[in-house]
Amino acid sequence: MNSRLLDLQQRVLSKNDQLAQSLRNRFQSAQILTLNLVSSPGSGKTAFLEKTLAQMSQTWAVAALVGDLATDNDAKRLARSGAPVRQIVTEGMCHLEAEMIDLHLQGWNLAKLQFLFIENVGNLVCPSSYDLGEALRVVLLSVTEGEDKPLKYPPMFSSADVAIITKIDLAEAVEFDRNAAHANLRAVAPNIRIFESSAKTGAGVTEWIEFLVQKRESMFFQTPKE
Amino acid sequence: MNSRLLDLQQRVLSKNDQLAQSLRNRFQSAQILTLNLVSSPGSGKTAFLEKTLAQMSQTWAVAALVGDLATDNDAKRLARSGAPVRQIVTEGMCHLEAEMIDLHLQGWNLAKLQFLFIENVGNLVCPSSYDLGEALRVVLLSVTEGEDKPLKYPPMFSSADVAIITKIDLAEAVEFDRNAAHANLRAVAPNIRIFESSAKTGAGVTEWIEFLVQKRESMFFQTPKE
Repeated sequence: MNSRLLDLQQRVLSKNDQLAQSLRNRFQSAQILTLNLVSSPGSGKTAFLEKTLAQMSQTWAVAALVGDLATDNDAKRLARSGAPVRQIVTEGMCHLEAEMIDLHLQGWNLAKLQFLFIENVGNLVCPSSYDLGEALRVVLLSVTEGEDKPLKYPPMFSSADVAIITKIDLAEAVEFDRNAAHANLRAVAPNIRIFESSAKTGAGVTEWIEFLVQKRESMFFQTPKE
Repeated sequence: MNSRLLDLQQRVLSKNDQLAQSLRNRFQSAQILTLNLVSSPGSGKTAFLEKTLAQMSQTWAVAALVGDLATDNDAKRLARSGAPVRQIVTEGMCHLEAEMIDLHLQGWNLAKLQFLFIENVGNLVCPSSYDLGEALRVVLLSVTEGEDKPLKYPPMFSSADVAIITKIDLAEAVEFDRNAAHANLRAVAPNIRIFESSAKTGAGVTEWIEFLVQKRESMFFQTPKE
């Protein structure tokens, strides 16, 4: 690539990093656990988030921002949970940036929120370079995509804290090789925490929510539940 | 986005377009039908291409270039067909560019080729902006990804000439809505040609190959078979 273009991209990234850090500080002061959900298109981010919001919103103050190139379909789906949801339309851009998060938080009282979910644009490449101020980066990988994806898209998987293997109800139909998938995840991200779930059957969702609640307690209240 | 960055990106795109046009001229003189295969990660591009190459290479002079951020797994898989195959490792870049195609064609005698398949990086956003000199842009959409994808990634689908709905063997298991998928494809790409296929069962592959052979004849020999 053109070196002047690379230069300018570096500057855009560094500006993004600064803004992400200021968002992170705001989330910390407000004791919000913020998550950045990334994956291929069609991995089931929205379905998984829908389940998560529906279950969590009974007990916790949750909200979501959702990014797409076009349409507000996902925001409409997620809003059925009753949680506050806003759509970010990127108009062709392949990732979310910290500036878009900052803009779309306006008018929300952060002091009243406990968990903020950011659903990124479906893309296993570009979002890996853009910090959104999240505490946890969560990559979703559906059993239908193939166990090799962590090896083929290393920047995304190695930058993630948590991996959710989705559509686990289809594992048998697609002859999903669980051991290979886990081994490939750990090959690029040795410390990644792995969950398996199905938005269809609800499998794994409760365990995931318990993890988030405990994570938030350990971040902000220093006496984690055991 | 920064306006200087946009400016520079425009110049990179325009340089890419010029090089793509010169590739297109070379493919035309050599009477090669060149295809650019794009999709999400895990839509089954490599499996579909593997089936296509294995069947076509018995009769036709076919070759493939395959792009990935990392690994040469796909080139190894495709080479089992016996066709010449080269891996393009993009080292983190989210798409192929015409320059990479030009570079990786070196040493191949184009006069002896009839079909060239380019498997792009798995990404439903970035590759849409980069012409590779192809005669046909082919977007793959697996039944597991959801019927809404054409509406959510319009630039990719509207720039494609052909759509292949893959993993059709899983249609029932995922309650695939065929009518909705076709309607959404046509909503963003009214003239798109749609095929359905399964690399597992082989369904649809013969019809697809017949289409390619006929397309090549109509492009270069003016008396298409009926």
